[in-house]
Amino acid sequence: MAQQAVIGVTGLGVMGRNLARNFARHGYPVAVHNRTSAKTTALMEEFGHEGDFIPAETPAEFVASLARPRKMIIMVKAGLSTDAVIDEYAPLLEPGDILVDGGNAHYADTRRRERTLRELGIHFVGVGISGGEQGALEGPSIMPGGSAEAYASLGPILEDIAAKVDGVPCCAHVGPDGAGHFVKMVHNGIEYADMQLIAEAYDILRKGAGLSPAEITEVFRTWNSGRLESYLIEITAEVLAHTDAATGRPFVDVVLDQAEQKGTGRWTVQAALDLGVPVTGIAEAVFARSLSGHAAVRGAARELPGASGAGLEASFADAVEQALYASKVVAYAQGFDQIRAGSEQYDWNIDLGAMATIWRGGCIIRAHFLDRIRAAYQADPATPTLLSDANFAAEISKGQDAWREVVVAAIRRGIPAPGFASSLAYYDGLRAERLPAALIQAQRDFFGAHTYRRDDREGFYHTHWELPGRPEARIDV
Amino acid sequence: MAQQAVIGVTGLGVMGRNLARNFARHGYPVAVHNRTSAKTTALMEEFGHEGDFIPAETPAEFVASLARPRKMIIMVKAGLSTDAVIDEYAPLLEPGDILVDGGNAHYADTRRRERTLRELGIHFVGVGISGGEQGALEGPSIMPGGSAEAYASLGPILEDIAAKVDGVPCCAHVGPDGAGHFVKMVHNGIEYADMQLIAEAYDILRKGAGLSPAEITEVFRTWNSGRLESYLIEITAEVLAHTDAATGRPFVDVVLDQAEQKGTGRWTVQAALDLGVPVTGIAEAVFARSLSGHAAVRGAARELPGASGAGLEASFADAVEQALYASKVVAYAQGFDQIRAGSEQYDWNIDLGAMATIWRGGCIIRAHFLDRIRAAYQADPATPTLLSDANFAAEISKGQDAWREVVVAAIRRGIPAPGFASSLAYYDGLRAERLPAALIQAQRDFFGAHTYRRDDREGFYHTHWELPGRPEARIDV
Repeated sequence: MAQQAVIGVTGLGVMGRNLARNFARHGYPVAVHNRTSAKTTALMEEFGHEGDFIPAETPAEFVASLARPRKMIIMVKAGLSTDAVIDEYAPLLEPGDILVDGGNAHYADTRRRERTLRELGIHFVGVGISGGEQGALEGPSIMPGGSAEAYASLGPILEDIAAKVDGVPCCAHVGPDGAGHFVKMVHNGIEYADMQLIAEAYDILRKGAGLSPAEITEVFRTWNSGRLESYLIEITAEVLAHTDAATGRPFVDVVLDQAEQKGTGRWTVQAALDLGVPVTGIAEAVFARSLSGHAAVRGAARELPGASGAGLEASFADAVEQALYASKVVAYAQGFDQIRAGSEQYDWNIDLGAMATIWRGGCIIRAHFLDRIRAAYQADPATPTLLSDANFAAEISKGQDAWREVVVAAIRRGIPAPGFASSLAYYDGLRAERLPAALIQAQRDFFGAHTYRRDDREGFYHTHWELPGRPEARIDV
Repeated sequence: MAQQAVIGVTGLGVMGRNLARNFARHGYPVAVHNRTSAKTTALMEEFGHEGDFIPAETPAEFVASLARPRKMIIMVKAGLSTDAVIDEYAPLLEPGDILVDGGNAHYADTRRRERTLRELGIHFVGVGISGGEQGALEGPSIMPGGSAEAYASLGPILEDIAAKVDGVPCCAHVGPDGAGHFVKMVHNGIEYADMQLIAEAYDILRKGAGLSPAEITEVFRTWNSGRLESYLIEITAEVLAHTDAATGRPFVDVVLDQAEQKGTGRWTVQAALDLGVPVTGIAEAVFARSLSGHAAVRGAARELPGASGAGLEASFADAVEQALYASKVVAYAQGFDQIRAGSEQYDWNIDLGAMATIWRGGCIIRAHFLDRIRAAYQADPATPTLLSDANFAAEISKGQDAWREVVVAAIRRGIPAPGFASSLAYYDGLRAERLPAALIQAQRDFFGAHTYRRDDREGFYHTHWELPGRPEARIDV
């Protein structure tokens, strides 16, 4: 009998290929297959020497080469192709086999597919994989959903090829069915917010304090040795230090200022709206990208007047660091709030501290910062918001005056800072003893008889605004 | 042969009943039916004298009483009941008949239903109706979608019972299939933003300037005789003037400060995300309501420190008026931007000026302000954003310093003003000569090879960040 593969990868685009190589490099015999065999041949020729690859020409051959229970990973573009591949493989698999989707699927699709395949006895596991091409090859952050039974045999292999931080793998079982893809989605939403906040910090330093890209590079390098240390801060410095060869101008000035997006940020906000979780930092980040691409609208609005306060001292960079840090804490607080809500909604029982742990390496938002989040949930797994964690609260308390002054400075100079401003408003909203939401609820009662609750007794009430004396009635609901 | 009804209403909840009475009061013989006959009987007993009602006990009897082509309006809770009622009636109708859904359906459902019924030759018309119970009875704002053919016979009747402003009915054919429900959805989204901004204005006057609800009542009454004149400003004054009989306290202080929502605001933001239109004002408003209801999170965050600038002069109210007005223009600009995007996406060919016209009366956001929007689109139907309309631009240019100072004042006093702050950031973002989106796109190229465009030549580019000298390559896409 021919050698059997421990795991298989079908779909040998750059992500699939690198993931297969990662398995092979870790000593796992890995079956590889692609719809068109050219990619399989290329993989074998270029990288066949890296390990034990078992190439297959057909799905049947591929499945036959897998040791039982079979473990195979689908690495195709999320969407209809995923369903097509599942439909092709499901009849070839047996009860107990594990079918993994490593694409960026929407968690609702993953839930649907898991339900269907469970009826056939097949474990369907949606896995979020973050870290891009390089991560796939050298160690990504891995967020597997699906059943605990599937994780028992699949998990150790994934943990083996995942990134490691302090010897701990950046991979943990997230929860049943779509939990992995849900957490990956929120990860990406947080990534949007993180990038937007960094961009605003850069913009304020550039336009407000008049620093050059070279000077801001140094600011970011300094920040990267402090509490903001992270992959995104690091590469921001790299980007800002880069000079365009063709023009000799700073690279960041040559790039068209229209940011694109692929959809997971949008999904995060849409899901948060359904869950009723305010993720304003992520929403502002997604919308800021949309706005940047609205060339016609921007062109029409360009002549509108702004404001120009006095230039800021270069030392203002310290205040910007405080604003960036505080806003970042808000973005993560909102994202983790959403994960908690999703976990409750779908009974996923997600360990929030474990999520912070597996994001410490391999993925785009990797940062030492996540250790603090892990510590916060370790100290109190039920902490209602990261903002109330003693350590974060102390840091923000210390920095909130600077945070306010940075937003004020941006407003007075006409520099858009939607992420900073929105995070600060969220902070002030959360801590408000009383919100004007009472007025909104009263308006709703006035025009639509939507009722209201009182702060001094239980129950729902409606005021008969149309009657003399405007009497109040208790409403049975 | 018995008398035939010009139109019929099935579903006699308070909205359906009042709509039927509105038809009857306008002289139309109207067929009425309800799943359980008690409501039909009650309608006949209480209001039968108001006009020509033709009660029916069964769907067959109801359909038989309608003149051809039959026009019947479904007034049931949006969702599965709508599909059930459609399934019940479709077999009883004939090609050319007009089946109207007057509920708050999602436009995607309306598009689906229209497609299905079109195959049977039945005109399915999704109609947005705004104005609540009172509007339904005395004249709502009506937003009908569906075919032009259906509107030719249905439209005049709807225009007859709609609200009138300057003799012009607040009803116009919006566009095919789901266009009516789409516009109604965005109307509600704008309503969320409008209410949030009013609430923030109130909050700043209360906490910042130290005015009492009675004093703020007077401020709102003054505003209501100026450019902010609107139903929402008017009822805000009414709410603020009201004293709770049980406690003698201002009513607004007694109401629990947790605002609820029914879903159309959420839908608006979700649809805007799919369309790529930044509706930050609406999003912040929806999320502000979610935040207000997060009791556990708010409780945990209550001890976080804020800020307390010096008290504001009462004359600060003028600045708040400027901020409210400018933020309101932004909210409407975003909403109309979304309607334009939806119209392009679905080929609805919506007349934006006509939408402003039919919102002038009957609905919750009714205001003279909408005449200015109508004028803007009359002056230039292709105006890319209301903010660049000459009149709005002039007003905002005059008020933008005050707008900035109000947001600054709120930030320095720890008063959450997410709507004001977000609108201002949107304004500054739109008019920015250059956005830091370039940095974001460069980061994306760095970590994910997502490519970028340049500001000096066409095409897509990728920098090989991993190679010495970081060479740039042009990418064929």
